[in-house]
Order: sequence, then structure tokens, then C-alpha cells
Amino acid sequence: MSDHVYKIIELTGSSSKGIEDAVENAVARAAQTVRNMRWVQVTDTRAHVENNKIAYWQVSIKIGFTMD
Amino acid sequence: MSDHVYKIIELTGSSSKGIEDAVENAVARAAQTVRNMRWVQVTDTRAHVENNKIAYWQVSIKIGFTMD
Amino acid sequence: MSDHVYKIIELTGSSSKGIEDAVENAVARAAQTVRNMRWVQVTDTRAHVENNKIAYWQVSIKIGFTMD
Amino acid sequence: MSDHVYKIIELTGSSSKGIEDAVENAVARAAQTVRNMRWVQVTDTRAHVENNKIAYWQVSIKIGFTMD
Amino acid sequence: MSDHVYKIIELTGSSSKGIEDAVENAVARAAQTVRNMRWVQVTDTRAHVENNKIAYWQVSIKIGFTMD
Amino acid sequence: MSDHVYKIIELTGSSSKGIEDAVENAVARAAQTVRNMRWVQVTDTRAHVENNKIAYWQVSIKIGFTMD
Amino acid sequence: MSDHVYKIIELTGSSSKGIEDAVENAVARAAQTVRNMRWVQVTDTRAHVENNKIAYWQVSIKIGFTMD
Amino acid sequence: MSDHVYKIIELTGSSSKGIEDAVENAVARAAQTVRNMRWVQVTDTRAHVENNKIAYWQVSIKIGFTMD
Amino acid sequence: MSDHVYKIIELTGSSSKGIEDAVENAVARAAQTVRNMRWVQVTDTRAHVENNKIAYWQVSIKIGFTMD
Amino acid sequence: MSDHVYKIIELTGSSSKGIEDAVENAVARAAQTVRNMRWVQVTDTRAHVENNKIAYWQVSIKIGFTMD
Amino acid sequence: MSDHVYKIIELTGSSSKGIEDAVENAVARAAQTVRNMRWVQVTDTRAHVENNKIAYWQVSIKIGFTMD
Amino acid sequence: MSDHVYKIIELTGSSSKGIEDAVENAVARAAQTVRNMRWVQVTDTRAHVENNKIAYWQVSIKIGFTMD
Repeated sequence: MSDHVYKIIELTGSSSKGIEDAVENAVARAAQTVRNMRWVQVTDTRAHVENNKIAYWQVSIKIGFTMD
Repeated sequence: MSDHVYKIIELTGSSSKGIEDAVENAVARAAQTVRNMRWVQVTDTRAHVENNKIAYWQVSIKIGFTMD
Repeated sequence: MSDHVYKIIELTGSSSKGIEDAVENAVARAAQTVRNMRWVQVTDTRAHVENNKIAYWQVSIKIGFTMD
Repeated sequence: MSDHVYKIIELTGSSSKGIEDAVENAVARAAQTVRNMRWVQVTDTRAHVENNKIAYWQVSIKIGFTMD
Repeated sequence: MSDHVYKIIELTGSSSKGIEDAVENAVARAAQTVRNMRWVQVTDTRAHVENNKIAYWQVSIKIGFTMD
Repeated sequence: MSDHVYKIIELTGSSSKGIEDAVENAVARAAQTVRNMRWVQVTDTRAHVENNKIAYWQVSIKIGFTMD
Repeated sequence: MSDHVYKIIELTGSSSKGIEDAVENAVARAAQTVRNMRWVQVTDTRAHVENNKIAYWQVSIKIGFTMD
Repeated sequence: MSDHVYKIIELTGSSSKGIEDAVENAVARAAQTVRNMRWVQVTDTRAHVENNKIAYWQVSIKIGFTMD
Repeated sequence: MSDHVYKIIELTGSSSKGIEDAVENAVARAAQTVRNMRWVQVTDTRAHVENNKIAYWQVSIKIGFTMD
Repeated sequence: MSDHVYKIIELTGSSSKGIEDAVENAVARAAQTVRNMRWVQVTDTRAHVENNKIAYWQVSIKIGFTMD
Repeated sequence: MSDHVYKIIELTGSSSKGIEDAVENAVARAAQTVRNMRWVQVTDTRAHVENNKIAYWQVSIKIGFTMD
Repeated sequence: MSDHVYKIIELTGSSSKGIEDAVENAVARAAQTVRNMRWVQVTDTRAHVENNKIAYWQVSIKIGFTMD
């Protein structure tokens, strides 16, 4: 445990449903190319507005994963 | 597109339901006086506590809209 | 009102349901030892990832309460 | 209470007397056009120097007021 | 001088030419509704990319102007 | 001196008189339960507005004290 | 649109001509390996000094691009 | 695991030996009153200078521990 | 006016009277070696506590002055 | 020199020995896939605590390397 | 190389031409009293507005130079 | 004690040995021209990488010293 090295990447996920779902979408997309994800940190929460309503949320996150 | 100017205003929306709803309430209120809103950025997330529970969320946002 | 003193403590709450629920859990736990909570401010939003999904959210908050 | 929306504006007030007076001056000026001010947050404290003395303080604040 | 109150507004200007021009565009647009502008502070510098080139710059600024 | 450990707590003090007095009130209240206070750092300066005037200042501070 | 995921990478571009050109150079280099770049955010502006003049600018940027 | 609540406290540890030792001293002192410490985050690194040498390091940390 | 260069130095002033007086003391001391001071910005407000009272304020400032 | 482009990646290294060793471990791991590393910046210093002692340090860094 | 000590000073340069020129002016002025300048970091970008146009840019920088 | 004024300067020290040694080197160099140094604050920790190893650490610090 004490000699692990983690890499941190930054993504922005989108969702019309809400903040948590935007994060889940980003994690799901990252899973196509990254293994061993461990944690997520939200760094920015934005939303796109259309016709005076939130059209979709855009949440930027950092993802940490173990380098094998 | 390349010559647009946007104005950015700051609001705090409230909601007993959750963070996204507090943002939606602020956007809905802004729509009474502002047209052409494009994006929202969350700048502060707070909540009011009563009787050991969250009574309502108070979310501060910046709203960007096109100046015609 | 003008002579109140508030103490501010910092907690991290967890929840598999979402960000608001993690905050509620921290407030509920704090209620066992602290009275007169007034406000909450979210200072950090993280999540633990297992098997390419959010296993649980970890939300750090500051809680302000009146010192009697 | 839980459905209020607040607008936040930013001003810089000046005063040769001190920091609090500069804030009071900004609030007094804002009162000419804004109703229902609720809170003030100091964001920057500066001063203008003339002849090796503070000539006047310049304090930037955010003011939150209820949107009716 | 010592009793002036300034209001601060936030705009985002765009330009395909460069950062300074984007700021100039925002100031020119603000001049249609605001008098007595005194200073500008750059708060964020972004650009929109199309076909692997900068299509236009988007520079966010705060503008301070004297309240008469 | 070189092996001291300090604990840091965070309070918000209020006062209708001014910023320094709000800090003094917080320190006086802390003195009821904490010994050996050494330093204070101001972390946030706010005020409550009523009838277009500052009703009272609310100053958040960190207090460091020696753990015996 | 609402289900896009973007990846954000960080580069530092150099140029003896100026800030915008340093950003353009970084974007041009990124284009060799990354498709669908959408936006750039400047995060740090530095310069290398030789013989009392700016020898070249070094501008750090974040680039966001769509993950197909 | 997903329903844990952590409390976060802030300490400053001192040591004439170095940064890590100052943190260890703060953790050792905290262990007299707190159980189940999990993580430490360094928030400020300072040192006291005497006779042109570092006399002792003063490192401020946040400590997170599980609330049983 | 448009070709002035300013130097910025950082000082910490002390005073048992209050925040403004601590700034004035730092400006007065700087005046012994620096000419043409123009502005001050407060960067940190601290205080030393003795016997449960503020013994003196310690205010850090940046001072800008014209280089002749 | 003036036309170099650098890429910046973010890693977290671990070590039971200390902060510098955690950074060295992250650099050594990065060397398996990245060439031409030039600089490191420490962005976060944390530690994992077990049985009231630091079990291992976790230091987050940004690494800049030349893009050939 | 590994035992160099650098001093960092802070200046604000002005120019009616643009941001880069304001930095060049500050570096040129510093060269009258400082040798061995190595790097510049932009810390604040402001401008003075007259008659609804940018009259001159004011760019604050840190300059690092080798102490012989 | 209550009327002291401190000046704060910023240096970057280097060392192939470690972070503390880089700070000591900067303090030792400052001692050639500055008297009455009181405290140091670490503001940035970087390192130069050569051949996939840390060649030397570069630690930026602020030093506070009493103005006689």
C-alpha cells in the first residue's frame, strides 16, 4: 500500500439529470481506457442554459487511479 | 460568434429539495429580467440548518448571458 | 443577535446516494454532540470509486453553530 | 424563506476614516437603487497613500439583497 | 476623491485577434450602458478552438466605474 | 519552544461596533473553554445589513492555542 | 450534446513573439495526437529572461477535447 | 464504509529536525485525545529563524478521524 | 502616466489600537526608505493574544510605489 | 529552446520514509512511460495514519516533460 | 546549479501598447538595478480606462534573479 | 513588541539533499544582507529532474525580518 503511485486525470462529464449523474458519466467513459480508478474530486460545477432552464450539467472532476 | 460580449451576474438560489433545484430556482428568477442566458457556474454551496436537519440549500452561481 | 459567537467545525460525510445525503449524514452525526447548528458550507466534494462506479460520495463541510 | 433568490453585486467604497466607514459609504450609496440588502462580504481592502500617509481606504464588498 | 463609490461588473469579451482586443471589445460594449469606467481587471483567459486553431479568445474582466 | 503543539479552532464573532470588536468578542467567548491562546487570523469579514445600514459585523477567525 | 465527456490536458507552450503565439504553438503540438479540441484556458503566464529582455514566453494552458 | 462520518481538526506541530517530524509530533499529541485518525493534510509550512538558522519547523495540518 | 513602473514590497505592521493603525505604522516605517508610495493592499490580518485579549494586531500589506 | 512544448501530468507518490522519497517514487514510476522529464511541482502533501503514526506519505505532484 | 539562490521581486509595468509590452517595460526598468534576471511570472493583469477605451495596461509580475 | 514592523522578502533556495536543506540555503544566503530574520513560510516546492531523478529541489519561501 505504502509504495503505490497514482495517476490523476481530469475530465468533464455532462448530464441533463444532475450533478451526480454527470460525474457517473465521466467515470463510465474513463472506464473504457483506465483501470483501477480509486477516487474522484469535483473541481468545477457548471451548467448549460437553454430557454431559461438548465439543459445539462457539466461537472469537471479529477480521477485518481493506481498505476500497476 | 467571435464578437459576442457576455455579461456575468451573481445570484444565490434556495431550495429545500437539493442543490440542482436551488440553481434552477435562481435561473428561473433571473429569467424574469435577463434574456439569452448561456451558462451557469456554481461558486458556493451552503445550507441553512434547523432542528438538526438541512432546512434549505443556498447555492451561489454566476450566470453568463449574451449582450444583444 | 448582534453579540452571538459561532463555532465552526469541519466534518466529512459519506453516502452511496448522493451529495446532499452525504451532507445530511454529517449533520445528523454532529447533532449527537452539538446543539444549535445554523449553517453548512460545502468545502470539498469527492467520491470513492469501486468497479468503475461511484461507491459512495464523501463531502466535506463546515458547520456553524451558536455558542450558548 | 426557503425559496428566496438573492442577487449579489460588487462595490468599492472609500473613506478617509477607516475600513468600516468605507463599507458604510458603499452600502449607503447602494441604498439609492437597491432594496432589501441583507449581507455584506469584504473581498479586498486597499488604501490610497499620499505624502506617506493613508489618504483614504478603498474597500471592495459584495452585497446580497433579496429579489422581490 | 476619498468619498467615491465604484460599482464593479463582470463581462466576457471575444475576439479572433487576441487577448487585448477581446478586452477592448468588452469595454466598448459596456460603454453603451455604463459611464465613467475607470479600471479593468482580467479574471479569466480562455479561447475557443476550431480545426486545431484558436478561433477566438474569450477574456473575462471586471470593470470598475464611478457611481455618480 | 521547539516541541510545542498548537490546536487551531475557528469561530465567528459579532459586534455592532466594528471589525476589531467582533474579533475581541470571539476571543472573550473562547476564553471560557480554551486556555493559552496565542494568535488569531482573520479568515472572513462579513456584515449583516438592516434598513440600509450595517447592523452588526461578523468576523470569522482562526485561533491558535498551545496544547499543554 | 448533453452526454458528451471531455478530457482536459495541461500543456506549456513557448514563443518569442508573445502570449497568444505561445498558446497557438501548444495547440498546434497537441493537434498531432489529440482530435476534437474545443477550448483552452490559460492557467499560468511566465517568461524566460536573457540579457535583460524577454527571450520567450511560456504559457501554461488546459485544453478540453471531446472523447469520441 | 459508505456511511462513515469523519471529523477534521487542525493542529500545528513543531520540530527542530524537519517537516515530517513536526507532523509526527502533532499526530502524537493528537493521539492523547483522539482515536481512529485516518489521514493528514499539510496546510502550511513555516519555520522560526534564530541567529540566521532554522530553529524549528512549524507545520500546520488537518487531521481526519472516524467518528465512532 | 502610461509608462510608469511600480515596485511592490511587503511589510507587516503592528499596533495595539487596531487594524488601520497597524497599517499606518507600516507605511510610516516604509517612508524612511521609500519615496512615492501610491497604494496599499491588505494581504493578511492577524493578532497576538495575551491573557485572553488582543495584545496587538499584525497586518501584512503590499505597498506599491513609483520607481523614479 | 523558445519553441518547446511541455506536457504536464499529475501523479501521487507514496513512501513510508518521507516527502522527498514519495516524490522520487512518483518520478521513478513516471519514467517507465515518459521521457524528457524536466520539472516537478508539489501540489498536495498528505499522509495516511495508522495506529497513531504516519504509515506513509502521499505527495501529489505535477511533472513537466518536453514533447519531442 | 543545484546551490543557486534566487531573489524574487514584484513590479507593475505599464504600456499603452499591450500586455507583453507592459512586462517588457517593467523588466527594462528592473535592469537598471538588478542583474542576472532569469524568469518572470505574471500575477495580475489590469488596465486603466479613459473615455471608454483602454488608456494603458498595468501588468504585475514577479521577477526571479540569481543572487551572486 | 507591539510596535514592530517586519519586512517580508521572497527567495528560492536550491539543494540536491532535500526540501529543508533548500530552505536553509536560502536563509543562509539572505543572512549576508539581512539581519533579524524571524520567520519563514514555504510558498512553492518544485524540483529539477535530470535523467529521471530529482537533481535538486527548488523551494520558494517568504522571510520576515524586523526593521530596526
